[in-house]
Amino acid sequence: MAPIPDGFTYGQWSLVYNSLSFGIAGMGCATIFFWLQLPNVSKSYRTALTITGLVTAIATYHYVRIFNSWVDAFKVVNVNGGDYTVTLLGAPFNDAYRYVDWLLTVPLLLIELILVMKLPKAETVKLSWNLGVASAVMVALGYPGEIQDDLLVRWFWWAMAMIPFYYVVVTLVNGLSDATAKQPDSVKSLVVTARYLTVISWLTYPGVYIIKSMGLAGNIATTYEQVGYSVADVVAKAVFGVLIWAIAAGKSDEEEKNGLLG
Amino acid sequence: MAPIPDGFTYGQWSLVYNSLSFGIAGMGCATIFFWLQLPNVSKSYRTALTITGLVTAIATYHYVRIFNSWVDAFKVVNVNGGDYTVTLLGAPFNDAYRYVDWLLTVPLLLIELILVMKLPKAETVKLSWNLGVASAVMVALGYPGEIQDDLLVRWFWWAMAMIPFYYVVVTLVNGLSDATAKQPDSVKSLVVTARYLTVISWLTYPGVYIIKSMGLAGNIATTYEQVGYSVADVVAKAVFGVLIWAIAAGKSDEEEKNGLLG
Repeated sequence: MAPIPDGFTYGQWSLVYNSLSFGIAGMGCATIFFWLQLPNVSKSYRTALTITGLVTAIATYHYVRIFNSWVDAFKVVNVNGGDYTVTLLGAPFNDAYRYVDWLLTVPLLLIELILVMKLPKAETVKLSWNLGVASAVMVALGYPGEIQDDLLVRWFWWAMAMIPFYYVVVTLVNGLSDATAKQPDSVKSLVVTARYLTVISWLTYPGVYIIKSMGLAGNIATTYEQVGYSVADVVAKAVFGVLIWAIAAGKSDEEEKNGLLG
Repeated sequence: MAPIPDGFTYGQWSLVYNSLSFGIAGMGCATIFFWLQLPNVSKSYRTALTITGLVTAIATYHYVRIFNSWVDAFKVVNVNGGDYTVTLLGAPFNDAYRYVDWLLTVPLLLIELILVMKLPKAETVKLSWNLGVASAVMVALGYPGEIQDDLLVRWFWWAMAMIPFYYVVVTLVNGLSDATAKQPDSVKSLVVTARYLTVISWLTYPGVYIIKSMGLAGNIATTYEQVGYSVADVVAKAVFGVLIWAIAAGKSDEEEKNGLLG
């Protein structure tokens, strides 16, 4: 993997620093929210909500690691009251944490969406396997490109990862539309929103990936990349999780009204 | 024990580093999942599910230790923007954590499988003792070989450990098949999967052990060994645990339907 570039301004460095800290706070508080809500949804939705919290818990762990790795890679000081200078210490900034995180969280994210829909058991198992495996393969195919400096090889792996990505997106948009039609009216629009939020927030990842593939290098590319991934992660995990919770809570109320106590 | 070899590339070093971090995240989130699911299974299966979480909790602790030991053994820097160089600091990398972990977790793993089957009490006690002791002896016999550089002595202890290993595998495959036949239909295939996942994931351990016995030495063998054990551990503990949870949840639903509330 290419060493981290030199020449960060204090503004760029602290923008990444604060984005990563935002990731820790956002993911951490989302986790606590989801788990504290567990007794408020009926039993059928507790597994979905537990997994929603797991996704943000795993992300919290990784944001702490990425933050520490970022801090440990630099020396930031000012001398005689002048501007802060940011210099590399030579230690690696381990960005691979993101891929390890996605390998675990992306299949779980899709499974929480499938579970909250409460489809027939066979369909739940089939969709969970198909989407879970496809999304893990997608993340695994992105990694060899991420650690490449050769732009052509980088584009090759990007294109490979886009194949399972396309499959997941098409399944979410088309395959789940029948299932969505069967959801109670009160949550139908939330389910539609959750599916499209997945698609839209996911589209930002190949976009951020492309930043470096375009040949944009150095500290500006790294700053965009880190801030971009952090924002995309909070949307795809914490904001998406709030939708999952709202669907679970809405469906629990509906079932309670109909006397189907969980 | 042989000191850790020199000559790791940054790619090899960080592959081990990220595998160990993957172990922490995977085992840690599995633990939380199992324990949060406790209220959702009937009382009869809560001990099995508690132990399932204990196994991954013990593993989380050891993966934190192994990760820190790995990090502390090396100095990783780059100079003037060149590639990262990985040099030994002289501190030991304590791989024995794995054996301490297995000594605790492997008997517990087998006990969680026996408990979730809910056999008659006498059979549960007998199987737990037999499989628990045999698997602890297996781990204890593997250790003297692991710390050997003499390949012949290494093979000797490998063969010794294979005796209790063989006993456990045969008991899982044959001895438990009567008990499996008595499980409710809805979970029968899950129980079969759990038994075979144990056998298959366990077979990877003597395989990884053999890497060094084949005379493959140095940084490549260590890289394969660490990544191999990490993947095998996550499958044998966390993925296996998900199956145990699914069996416990399925049987709880079954009992609830039949009015046998736990």
